[in-house]
Amino acid sequence: MVSEKMKTFMTGNSAIRAMFEEGKKMAKLYGKDKVYDFSLGNPSVEPPKEVTDAAVKILLESVPNELHGYPNNSGYEDVRAHIAQLSNKKHGTDYTEKNYVITTGAAAAINISLKVLIDPGDEVIVFAPYFSEYNNYIRNYDGVVVPVMANLETFQPNLELFEKSLTSKTKAVIINTPNNPTGVVYSEDTLKTISEILIKHTQKTGKTIYIISDEPYRELVYGGIKVPFVPDYYKNTFVAYSYSKSLSLPGERIGYVCVNTAADGFDDIVSCLNVANRISGFVNAPTLWQKVIPYCSDLKVDLSIYERNRNDLYNMLKELGYTCVEPQGAFYIFPKTLIPDDKEFCNAAKEFRLLIVPGSSFGCPGFCRISYCIPHDTIINSYESFKLLKEKFSI
Amino acid sequence: MVSEKMKTFMTGNSAIRAMFEEGKKMAKLYGKDKVYDFSLGNPSVEPPKEVTDAAVKILLESVPNELHGYPNNSGYEDVRAHIAQLSNKKHGTDYTEKNYVITTGAAAAINISLKVLIDPGDEVIVFAPYFSEYNNYIRNYDGVVVPVMANLETFQPNLELFEKSLTSKTKAVIINTPNNPTGVVYSEDTLKTISEILIKHTQKTGKTIYIISDEPYRELVYGGIKVPFVPDYYKNTFVAYSYSKSLSLPGERIGYVCVNTAADGFDDIVSCLNVANRISGFVNAPTLWQKVIPYCSDLKVDLSIYERNRNDLYNMLKELGYTCVEPQGAFYIFPKTLIPDDKEFCNAAKEFRLLIVPGSSFGCPGFCRISYCIPHDTIINSYESFKLLKEKFSI
Repeated sequence: MVSEKMKTFMTGNSAIRAMFEEGKKMAKLYGKDKVYDFSLGNPSVEPPKEVTDAAVKILLESVPNELHGYPNNSGYEDVRAHIAQLSNKKHGTDYTEKNYVITTGAAAAINISLKVLIDPGDEVIVFAPYFSEYNNYIRNYDGVVVPVMANLETFQPNLELFEKSLTSKTKAVIINTPNNPTGVVYSEDTLKTISEILIKHTQKTGKTIYIISDEPYRELVYGGIKVPFVPDYYKNTFVAYSYSKSLSLPGERIGYVCVNTAADGFDDIVSCLNVANRISGFVNAPTLWQKVIPYCSDLKVDLSIYERNRNDLYNMLKELGYTCVEPQGAFYIFPKTLIPDDKEFCNAAKEFRLLIVPGSSFGCPGFCRISYCIPHDTIINSYESFKLLKEKFSI
Repeated sequence: MVSEKMKTFMTGNSAIRAMFEEGKKMAKLYGKDKVYDFSLGNPSVEPPKEVTDAAVKILLESVPNELHGYPNNSGYEDVRAHIAQLSNKKHGTDYTEKNYVITTGAAAAINISLKVLIDPGDEVIVFAPYFSEYNNYIRNYDGVVVPVMANLETFQPNLELFEKSLTSKTKAVIINTPNNPTGVVYSEDTLKTISEILIKHTQKTGKTIYIISDEPYRELVYGGIKVPFVPDYYKNTFVAYSYSKSLSLPGERIGYVCVNTAADGFDDIVSCLNVANRISGFVNAPTLWQKVIPYCSDLKVDLSIYERNRNDLYNMLKELGYTCVEPQGAFYIFPKTLIPDDKEFCNAAKEFRLLIVPGSSFGCPGFCRISYCIPHDTIINSYESFKLLKEKFSI
């Protein structure tokens, strides 16, 4: 009844669902506060108060048909112009409303970008470990996923491997910094080298390769770290942004894709993104949330809450003898599993009521993802469980 | 730079855009009130007041992280259960939350339904005249569009042609009643016969064919007409619904797909729709608008406004000698053009500052679509223009 193609997308979904069901069972069995669920990426810090204020004000003061009617498929021009001005101020860009398509979050932004760029058989490079939805997004357009493993000591991409992975079929590279699942921010050096490699490849082949920079965690960085702005290093860049994490609004589906003005084929790309947004069934991003952006685009959630979680979790894991790279952003940490089989390890963790996700789910076996967008108490109270887990594999 | 496949989607988009640009130019030249724009399908009647009240109440009274966090990809269970109960009351169905995936409007509902059903080369039948976006939606999944012309005297589907169009590759039939662009409601007889033909075909071939019933205009009917409920006639039915028109919320993207419980492969289909909604980049429908549904799902906009527009426009066109089927629902009327070439006709209409859409855009040349979701004055003031247009082609 279901298409053969859809069936191929269903594989692997059962694992995540199984963990979710297991978590619910465990909560029933042991009590919710005795289960330490580090598996989800659902923001735990409240949106800035201004978000609610703006939404209420807009609802009360707008002409309803103007507020809720169809906007341009790319989004309201004034909202796009506002976002452009903010970018120009922050990053010294030359953007206008034309550079932007407002989307139902970064997932839509990546999907329409891929729809515009990818023909069947085109290759898209992703740097492992990576958000596994990229596999689905790329396959939606019959693209071929080409994972390139990171340097596992730093989680910066391995750029020698990257250069070797480029072929005449490479059409795009997805990067994600600050990174899910490692929390690492790609360095300036990394971005410069990626750019040099891509430019060299284009000189050789005459083919443009686009970077799709997935940046939902751009604002979530700690310890004064600065996230380099990808279009500063490579002109053929699409930035896929979401307010899901910076404003804690993941359920409302609001973000954008921004195409760098100097990108090859800028005009065509922008026209195509507008149409792709419409015909893929997104039509336009929710209009109320579009209108909220200008009130809140320069705000962010209280990062000190995530930062405390990060510090306490990182220090706890280090103290207990886990090997992990200190995350600089996002809300994940990605320690080495204590045995090579990360799935077995995460299964064993359930004995101690710890729900953590195998690195295999991010194309990087031998590690596990621990989310810290959770109550601080959960981290503190999980100490004994992480200790027992360590001991189990130290014997 | 842009994919070959995407380029194929860009063809034909220029025509609609050209009309939009032309309209803007004309408004500048003659004044906005002297241009009679009947080209758009943007609801003109205000949402019920309860919509704004509910949205504000929910924003002010909810825990923000619960309201704006990620729900189940299929939508909040309680909201789906509410919609199910309403259907059970109205239509005597046996639905629960399991039958529903809440979507970012009907466009998303149709897209994920097609993603779940269609393999490359599968055929999808549409009854012309039809909403031209179906072409794009079907081609998104490499399906083949098979248009079947309506009976042009009534705009009920021509069911002899329909039966002949079924092949071993037919996987789905999209129906749209009340219909865009004709305003016609498919009769019980039509639905019974469609069902009989499909059942007969399945008995012969062993292959299930699904109906996707696109129903954004379900509530917009006039003169006490009842819209038959498709699952009552055919068990393998998906209903794609949107609150865009019933509540005048097209910009907010909120609707659902409902799979009939008795549909073949129900469990698999429902699981796949959940995943398709996620991986296509929709992720979930905007959570605030999901929460608004239970407050407003039984309400609708003031239909008397559209009904007056319909009556006055229909009577005016009849009086002037245009041939048209009286619309029973939606907010369109689809008269015969006065010359066979509908594009030339709609071009000529611009002389009289009338913006109307050629029937060719709906797979039905020789007709034109006139939207009446516009101010009543525009209809009244356009009398002279429609008169001159008639005279131009009567000489």
